[in-house]
Amino acid sequence: MPSRTLTDSPAGVWIERVDLGPGDLGLPASDPWVVRKRALRGGRREGVDLIEVEHGGLTLAIVPTRGMGIWRAQHGELRLGWGSPVKDGPVNPAFVNLADLGGLGWLQGFDELMARCGLEHNGAPYVVAEGDGRQTAYPLHGRIANIPAHYVAVHVGDGPPHAITVEGHVNEARLFGMKVRMVTRITTVPGSRRITVRDEFTNLGDLPAEMQILYHWNFGPPLLGEGSRIVLPARAVVPRNARAVEGLGHHDVYGPPEPGFAEQVYFFEPIGEGADGRTVALLHDHAGGRGVALRFATSQLPCFTLWKNSGGLKDGYVTGLEPGTNYPNPKPFEAQRGRVVKLASGASHVAEMTLDVLDSAEAVAAAGAEIRALQAGEPPTIHPGPVEPFAAP
Amino acid sequence: MPSRTLTDSPAGVWIERVDLGPGDLGLPASDPWVVRKRALRGGRREGVDLIEVEHGGLTLAIVPTRGMGIWRAQHGELRLGWGSPVKDGPVNPAFVNLADLGGLGWLQGFDELMARCGLEHNGAPYVVAEGDGRQTAYPLHGRIANIPAHYVAVHVGDGPPHAITVEGHVNEARLFGMKVRMVTRITTVPGSRRITVRDEFTNLGDLPAEMQILYHWNFGPPLLGEGSRIVLPARAVVPRNARAVEGLGHHDVYGPPEPGFAEQVYFFEPIGEGADGRTVALLHDHAGGRGVALRFATSQLPCFTLWKNSGGLKDGYVTGLEPGTNYPNPKPFEAQRGRVVKLASGASHVAEMTLDVLDSAEAVAAAGAEIRALQAGEPPTIHPGPVEPFAAP
Amino acid sequence: MPSRTLTDSPAGVWIERVDLGPGDLGLPASDPWVVRKRALRGGRREGVDLIEVEHGGLTLAIVPTRGMGIWRAQHGELRLGWGSPVKDGPVNPAFVNLADLGGLGWLQGFDELMARCGLEHNGAPYVVAEGDGRQTAYPLHGRIANIPAHYVAVHVGDGPPHAITVEGHVNEARLFGMKVRMVTRITTVPGSRRITVRDEFTNLGDLPAEMQILYHWNFGPPLLGEGSRIVLPARAVVPRNARAVEGLGHHDVYGPPEPGFAEQVYFFEPIGEGADGRTVALLHDHAGGRGVALRFATSQLPCFTLWKNSGGLKDGYVTGLEPGTNYPNPKPFEAQRGRVVKLASGASHVAEMTLDVLDSAEAVAAAGAEIRALQAGEPPTIHPGPVEPFAAP
Repeated sequence: MPSRTLTDSPAGVWIERVDLGPGDLGLPASDPWVVRKRALRGGRREGVDLIEVEHGGLTLAIVPTRGMGIWRAQHGELRLGWGSPVKDGPVNPAFVNLADLGGLGWLQGFDELMARCGLEHNGAPYVVAEGDGRQTAYPLHGRIANIPAHYVAVHVGDGPPHAITVEGHVNEARLFGMKVRMVTRITTVPGSRRITVRDEFTNLGDLPAEMQILYHWNFGPPLLGEGSRIVLPARAVVPRNARAVEGLGHHDVYGPPEPGFAEQVYFFEPIGEGADGRTVALLHDHAGGRGVALRFATSQLPCFTLWKNSGGLKDGYVTGLEPGTNYPNPKPFEAQRGRVVKLASGASHVAEMTLDVLDSAEAVAAAGAEIRALQAGEPPTIHPGPVEPFAAP
Repeated sequence: MPSRTLTDSPAGVWIERVDLGPGDLGLPASDPWVVRKRALRGGRREGVDLIEVEHGGLTLAIVPTRGMGIWRAQHGELRLGWGSPVKDGPVNPAFVNLADLGGLGWLQGFDELMARCGLEHNGAPYVVAEGDGRQTAYPLHGRIANIPAHYVAVHVGDGPPHAITVEGHVNEARLFGMKVRMVTRITTVPGSRRITVRDEFTNLGDLPAEMQILYHWNFGPPLLGEGSRIVLPARAVVPRNARAVEGLGHHDVYGPPEPGFAEQVYFFEPIGEGADGRTVALLHDHAGGRGVALRFATSQLPCFTLWKNSGGLKDGYVTGLEPGTNYPNPKPFEAQRGRVVKLASGASHVAEMTLDVLDSAEAVAAAGAEIRALQAGEPPTIHPGPVEPFAAP
Repeated sequence: MPSRTLTDSPAGVWIERVDLGPGDLGLPASDPWVVRKRALRGGRREGVDLIEVEHGGLTLAIVPTRGMGIWRAQHGELRLGWGSPVKDGPVNPAFVNLADLGGLGWLQGFDELMARCGLEHNGAPYVVAEGDGRQTAYPLHGRIANIPAHYVAVHVGDGPPHAITVEGHVNEARLFGMKVRMVTRITTVPGSRRITVRDEFTNLGDLPAEMQILYHWNFGPPLLGEGSRIVLPARAVVPRNARAVEGLGHHDVYGPPEPGFAEQVYFFEPIGEGADGRTVALLHDHAGGRGVALRFATSQLPCFTLWKNSGGLKDGYVTGLEPGTNYPNPKPFEAQRGRVVKLASGASHVAEMTLDVLDSAEAVAAAGAEIRALQAGEPPTIHPGPVEPFAAP
C-alpha cells in the first residue's frame, strides 16, 4: 500500500509540509484527492500540526498535536463540528494546563468535532487525598487530547476505492503510571461521505493496566437546531442529575439556542446487534433532511452519553454524541461498577466508529429505520432520575 | 491608512520576519522609523514573537506572545522598564505555569515594562472550594499576560505625523467561562516621546460577563532611585496592610535599594477632571530632571495602586504604577465592593493610557503643576491603616 | 581556546544547526570528533535542542532544553542510560506540568541518563499551607531539569588532548523567589571513556539563598541485570522506609526484572579521601566485566542515595546513583538537618563528577580496589531501619 511517513519523531523523521495527491503515490487520479500537512503559526495555535484530507465527498482536518483529534469536517456546504468560544484554535497543548480551572483546564483547548477523552481516566474531575497532605487531582477528560502524536503516516489503498488512512501514534506513558499506546487509523474513501476511526490501545507495560476511552463527537448548527433530534436504540435512558431530569420528557429533541441554558446529560444503554453489538446513533435536523449517523459496537464501546448544551450561539450551542467504554462519571465511580477496561501486559482494546454524513431525507429515514429495527418495538426504560449503576442517585 | 497584517492565525496569515520602514508603505521618510518583527530563539524565550518600533524619539518592544505586553522602551539613554530577576525573558507562556508556586506562577515570566493583569480576575491569588473536594485556584494577576495574540497588524497614518500603531487581538475565551476579546492599539508618533495604549475589551459571549483589568507599569533605575517621587492627584491614600502602614509617612518617596525590603502597596482614589476624569501620575527622579507621566481616565480606570518594591538591585528594585478597574485584592473582595466591570453581551469597555517620557526639569515641573491643579489645594485623606472599601481593615 | 557559541538568547545568538569537527575550529584531526546540534521535531520532543558529541570513545547527547541534562551516552555497543516508559522523549518542558499528578508531573519527562534535581528543592513532593486557604505545592525534584538553557557554547582545548566541553547556563530565577544560575561544563576527551560534569551554582540575588542539588544518574541493562552490584565506601547505610528494609540484606545486589517491584531506596554516608573527600561509586554487571565508576567529592556532594527500581523491563528496570547535597526527603526535613546549601549573595557552590565507563574486568577490579582502600577494612554501619538524621524513623 502506498504510504508516506510524515512524522516519526523517535526515528528523526519529520516532513515539514506536504501536499500529496494520487500522482505523488503513483495512483490513478480518477477520484481526485489531496492530503496536506502544515504547521499552523501564531497565537495559541503556534506550532500545531494540521493534516487536511480533501476529496470529492468530504474535507477533514486532523490534529496530530492534539492527540489525533478531528478538528473539523465538511461535506459541500454542510459543516460538521461546532462554533467553540475557543475561536483561535486548534490550541497547542503547550498553552493548556489541564490542572487549571479547578481541573477544567481541558476546556481551554476544546474546539474539536471529535476529541478523545482518556486514557488513564475521563469524565468529571476528581481529587484523591494522598494521606501526606498532598492531593492528586484528576482533570476533566484526561490527557490524551493534549498529547502530541509522535508518529504520523498516510496510507492509500493501491486498488479502488483508494481509501485514504491517516495513522497516528500517541503514548500516554510514564514511569510509575499509565503506559498505553494508541494507534489510530482515520480512514475516508475518496468521493464518500464517511469517516472511519479505528483506535487500538495497547498496554506497553509489564503490569495490567486500566483505561477508559470516550469519544466526544460534537455538533452545532446546521445539524443542531430547534427541533433537531437524536435517536438511538436503547434499553435504558438515565438522566445524570436533577438538571437533566428537568428535560427528560424531551431529552431526544433540541431546543433553540438559549443563552444561560445549563447542560443536560443523559446516559444510554445502547442496543447492538450481532456478536459485536453493532449499533448506530442518528442526529438529524428538524426537517429530517440532513444528519449524521454514528456507528459503533457495544462490544467495544458499551456506553453512550448524550450531552445537550443548547446555550447561546456565541457561548457554544452544541451537542455531544459520546460512545465510550464508560460514562463520564469520576473514574472511581465507574471502576466500582466495572466500567474500566483492563488490559493485560501487551494486550489491546480496539474501538471503531464510522461517521456517515446523511445529506438527504432518504438517508436520514434509512438510518431511522435501522434504529427502529434495533429497538424492535420494545421502548427503552426511561428512568425518572439518576439510578444505579449509571449515576449516583 | 497603510497597514500590514503580520499575524492572523485563524486566517492562516503569518509573516515570519519583517523590517518595515516608511518606503515599504509608500510614505515619505522625513521622520524615519522602522517596525521589526522576529521570533526569539533559545532558552525560555524560544518562539516568542517580538515587535520592535524604533523612531527618533523612542524604541519600544511589544510581545504578542505575552498578550501584547510592552517589554521595554527606551528614549535615548533613558531606559524605561526594570531589571527583573527573570534575566532571560521575555518568557514563552508555554514555560509558565500560572497555577504553580501556590498561585504565584505568573512571577516566572514577569519582566515587562507594562504587563496587563486580568481579565477574568487580577490581584492576589485565591482559592474557592467547589464542594466536591475540588478547589479552584485563581492565580495571581490572571491569564491575559500569558495568552498569545492571534492577530497582529501595523498601521501607519498616511498623513503627518504618521503615527505608528501596533494592533493586537487576544482572546480570553472558553466554553463555560470568560469570553472576552481584547483589541489593543499601541501607538507612537515618530519623533515623539509618547506611547499611547488603547484597549477595547468586548464580551463575545451571549451572557453578561465580568472582567477586571489592571495595568502593571514597572520602573526601575534610573527613574527609580533614592529620593524619587510619585505624585498623583488623589482624594484618598490607603495602605494595603500593616507593612504598608510602616512606610505611610513617606509613601510618595522612594528609598535606596535595600535587600530584603518587603513590598509596600498603597491604594489611591485618583482625582480626574472633565467628564472622562482625565488624570495623571508622575514618577520622577530625585533631581526632578527626568520622569514619566502616566495619563489615564478615572471613568475608565477608577483605581490606582502603587507598588513600592525597593529591594536590592539584583532582586528587583522596582515600582509599579497601576491604574485599574479595581485594586488588586482577590476578586471576590472587589466584586462585593462593586469594582468589577459588567459587560452585556456584545458590549465593550475601553481603557486608554498615555505614557510621556519627561526628559527635562521643565517637563517634570509642568506635569507637577498639572497635578497640583487637579489636587486643587485639597490634600488627600491619608488613612492611617487599611480601611473599607479599599482594603480589609 | 577555540569556542563556538550556539545559543545566547539574551544576546540574540542562535545557531539553528551545527556539525562541528576539528577542521572547523582549525584543529588537527588526529583524534576525530564531531559536535552536532539540531532541533528535534514532532510529538512531545517538538522544538527540543539536542547536542550530540561523538568521538572514538563515546557518544553523548545533551539536552539544553531540558536543563542541560544528559539524555544518553554510548561506548561502542554499551548503552548508558535506561529504557524509560517515556518512549518518545526527550520531552519539551512545554508539555510537562510539574504540578500535575499530585506533584509527580516530573515523571512525564523523565528519561535521562542524568537528570538534575533542584535547585530550590528536590526530593519527594510536599505541600505547605499558606494560611489563607492556599497551598503551595513543591513538586518532585524541583524545576531545573525542565528549564531551557539560555546560553550554550562548545569549547575545544587547543592543545592535546583537545578536550571538548559543552557549556550551558540555566537560570532558576524570578521575583520573590530563587535567583540561582547554574553554569555547567560537560567535558569529554576524544578517545576517552570519561564524562566530566562541573556545575557552578551562583546566587544572583542580593539576599542569601538556599539550594539543593542531586544528580540522578540512571542505568538500565546491560549494566543493570540480575547479580549486578553497587559498591561504594560508606560509613553508614540507611533504608529509607519499611519497603527498603525488606531488601536490606542484599541492598547492594540487584535482582532480575520483576514486574510490580516497588522501589527501594537507601541512603549512604560516603567516605571520601583528602580535603575534598574524593570518592567513587561503582556499578558493575554480574560478571564484573563491565561497569561505571561515578566519582565525586563529599565536600561538594556529601550525600549518596541509591534508587533500586528493578521492575519489569517495559515498566522501567533501572537503578539511580544519586550523589547530592542532601537526601531526597522533602526539603523541610532536610533543612532541619542542615542539608541545604546556603549561598551568600554572589557566592557559588561547585559540584563536580566524573563518570568512567569500565569496559574490562581489570577496570572494574581496579575501581573495586579503590573502594576497598577507602573503606579501609571498617565496614559501614548498616542500620536496620530508617534512623535520624537520614530519614524519619
